[in-house]
Amino acid sequence: MTQRLSCDSLWLGADLVTLRDGRYQIIHDGALAVAEGKIAWAGPQAQLPAYNADTTTHFDGGIITPGFIDCHTHLMFGGDRSDEFEQRLNGVSYADIAANGGGILSTVRATRAATEQQLVESARQRLALLLAEGVTTVEIKSGYGLDIDSEVKMLRAIRQLAAQVPAQVVATCLAAHAVPPEYAGRADAWITTLSDQLLPQVAREQLADAVDAFCEHLAFSPAQVKTLFNTATQLGLPVKLHAEQLSALGGSALAARYHALSADHLEYLTEEDVQAMAASGTVAVLLPGAFYLPRETQRPPVELLRQYGVPMAIASDANPGTSPALSLRLMLNMACTLFRLTPEEALAGVTYHAAKALGQQASHGSLEVGKVADFVHWPIARPAELTYWLGGQLPCTTVYRGSVRHGTV
Amino acid sequence: MTQRLSCDSLWLGADLVTLRDGRYQIIHDGALAVAEGKIAWAGPQAQLPAYNADTTTHFDGGIITPGFIDCHTHLMFGGDRSDEFEQRLNGVSYADIAANGGGILSTVRATRAATEQQLVESARQRLALLLAEGVTTVEIKSGYGLDIDSEVKMLRAIRQLAAQVPAQVVATCLAAHAVPPEYAGRADAWITTLSDQLLPQVAREQLADAVDAFCEHLAFSPAQVKTLFNTATQLGLPVKLHAEQLSALGGSALAARYHALSADHLEYLTEEDVQAMAASGTVAVLLPGAFYLPRETQRPPVELLRQYGVPMAIASDANPGTSPALSLRLMLNMACTLFRLTPEEALAGVTYHAAKALGQQASHGSLEVGKVADFVHWPIARPAELTYWLGGQLPCTTVYRGSVRHGTV
Ligand SMILES: [Zn+2]
Ligand SMILES: [Zn+2]
Repeated sequence: MTQRLSCDSLWLGADLVTLRDGRYQIIHDGALAVAEGKIAWAGPQAQLPAYNADTTTHFDGGIITPGFIDCHTHLMFGGDRSDEFEQRLNGVSYADIAANGGGILSTVRATRAATEQQLVESARQRLALLLAEGVTTVEIKSGYGLDIDSEVKMLRAIRQLAAQVPAQVVATCLAAHAVPPEYAGRADAWITTLSDQLLPQVAREQLADAVDAFCEHLAFSPAQVKTLFNTATQLGLPVKLHAEQLSALGGSALAARYHALSADHLEYLTEEDVQAMAASGTVAVLLPGAFYLPRETQRPPVELLRQYGVPMAIASDANPGTSPALSLRLMLNMACTLFRLTPEEALAGVTYHAAKALGQQASHGSLEVGKVADFVHWPIARPAELTYWLGGQLPCTTVYRGSVRHGTV
Repeated sequence: MTQRLSCDSLWLGADLVTLRDGRYQIIHDGALAVAEGKIAWAGPQAQLPAYNADTTTHFDGGIITPGFIDCHTHLMFGGDRSDEFEQRLNGVSYADIAANGGGILSTVRATRAATEQQLVESARQRLALLLAEGVTTVEIKSGYGLDIDSEVKMLRAIRQLAAQVPAQVVATCLAAHAVPPEYAGRADAWITTLSDQLLPQVAREQLADAVDAFCEHLAFSPAQVKTLFNTATQLGLPVKLHAEQLSALGGSALAARYHALSADHLEYLTEEDVQAMAASGTVAVLLPGAFYLPRETQRPPVELLRQYGVPMAIASDANPGTSPALSLRLMLNMACTLFRLTPEEALAGVTYHAAKALGQQASHGSLEVGKVADFVHWPIARPAELTYWLGGQLPCTTVYRGSVRHGTV
């Protein structure tokens, strides 16, 4: 005699796009049972065992996907840069904008000037738009404070936001985002400050779940990143890296040697980097918004990543400069249109592989028994529609930790 | 003594981005008075005369723009082509897809098979997403029927939709969208059928507000378009044209000679075409979605259009093949990012100049006394934010013919 299935809620009437192993793995006319916020059963309704359920929801068709995971954002910042965006299009040169205090430093000024509460509030408004499209997990980085107090303020604000919204918010310390103006020409000294002061505090107070850096000529060298990663590793903090966005410095291979969760951007990634990432299980996080908006022409080497079996995630890179993106679903379309991913790869990139990019492959990213019950019902016929429709907020029902999420945040 | 202002509603507390003459023309801390569905007064609140108002709405900052006008869509169609979109990204060739009945003909089959009611219903769902972002006027074309009965069915469905939704819906007859399969190799005969049968019926039954055609090697020649335009003109129907999308045939200059409302796409427009359009007042409708998705590289000659003072409109071209776009606001960003329009030009392109592209410059497209009270309040600081934020449904309050529009359609 089979065991009786006992659950809090049961979800029927839709196809399950499970994303098991990062593939669609569609279960037609599926049933999904949730108990204590986790998936207790997933399979064809025809094979559903005898059950008790407190609530049963019958969908009239459509598909259910795992909740979307945006694994790389800079969603928290002071001000915005719409003025600078407009100036550039009106013909003002980058040099003149920089001379007038524009670029990332204008965001740093506005972020330093903002209170923790103001940072929480403005990030919450932007987060609401991401969540409206089925996002259930979002990573948010610091990196616009660029002094110890302001970086701590940002990380505390991210933790505060996390406690208030119906979504999982993962915090990343990106104090090595740019060389602070006060450290101009002394990037080494900033790395030392981070290693001696900020990272130990971050670890002690659990202010972040990982440490990130920007490895590029205009930011930090591989040697500086190495110093930072040594400290992070000693403190037990996982690492990840902005790498190979504008040039090939081998940052991704370096990150792989530190078993980084992910290397991100990757337009200039070499085959050697790809091999190193494959060996370490480091996820390639592709950011099509930050490719589209600056009109970059060098595509990340998707064919090599496929060839070596490096998992590819897709994220919004939501930030006030190169990607003021407020839609992860739009990034699916851009990943396919601009990077030539398939719709299946793109969807896996915001679910299964995005979970791995956050070190959460055991608990998130697919519709499998034992994983957290974060999922989305879409009244569409085929998963490719998620990628195909260009813009527009497709209606959906989001279930977060087993409960339907209502309204905005 | 000044006359007392008597109005139905008064709107205070926001900046008015009036778009008068197609420029921002911002009135800080503005007041907007509405009487009988039209704008009765617009100016700085400090200069507001004594008034009576049935209702007064106080916004806490933000901006008010004219309602958005999407002046070129194919929003009504049977089926969708997400399967084909996915096949192409999975490596299936265009030739194989066409051999399997894909491309526009698959949409024609699905549209012919759909009932008028089904066409209304699926278009309504897509329209709801456009309207959620402040669209108050939308043009919808026929052109997937490609036989007399199915074209009439589409036009009736568009008129039926128009009667049901809180937005102005303008209908365009695009029966010369492609050569029907039954007329393969006999495009002239289809043009004759349209001139003899369909257009007279369209005029008699007021099924459409304008006549459009696709002038291209794979569709209709300038000579065939000329025949169609002669008939339309005799029947008193304004014309517009899909022109210079894939090659330079001089369709835009031809359209200008018929005082066309607009010529649309225009990637391969020549200086001669631009001069003709400038002389006739024909609007250049740019369609960045249909440039982005097929990864076109030839930009429309924006500099020439500016030089000769041809008004530029921006539209979604919402269609199941080359631009499954469900957001006009995203098109603003794409017009700037891909075509290098300024945010001001882009905004004028979905308001002031889009109204002109529909022949409605006297009644729509700007916040001016006497025009229809279609406007949108956005809780943002600067109009450039409408272009800057990439995706995401920005919250807004839409006023249509003087009344706040609630919920979806
Ligand atoms: Zn980033
Ligand atoms: Zn079109």
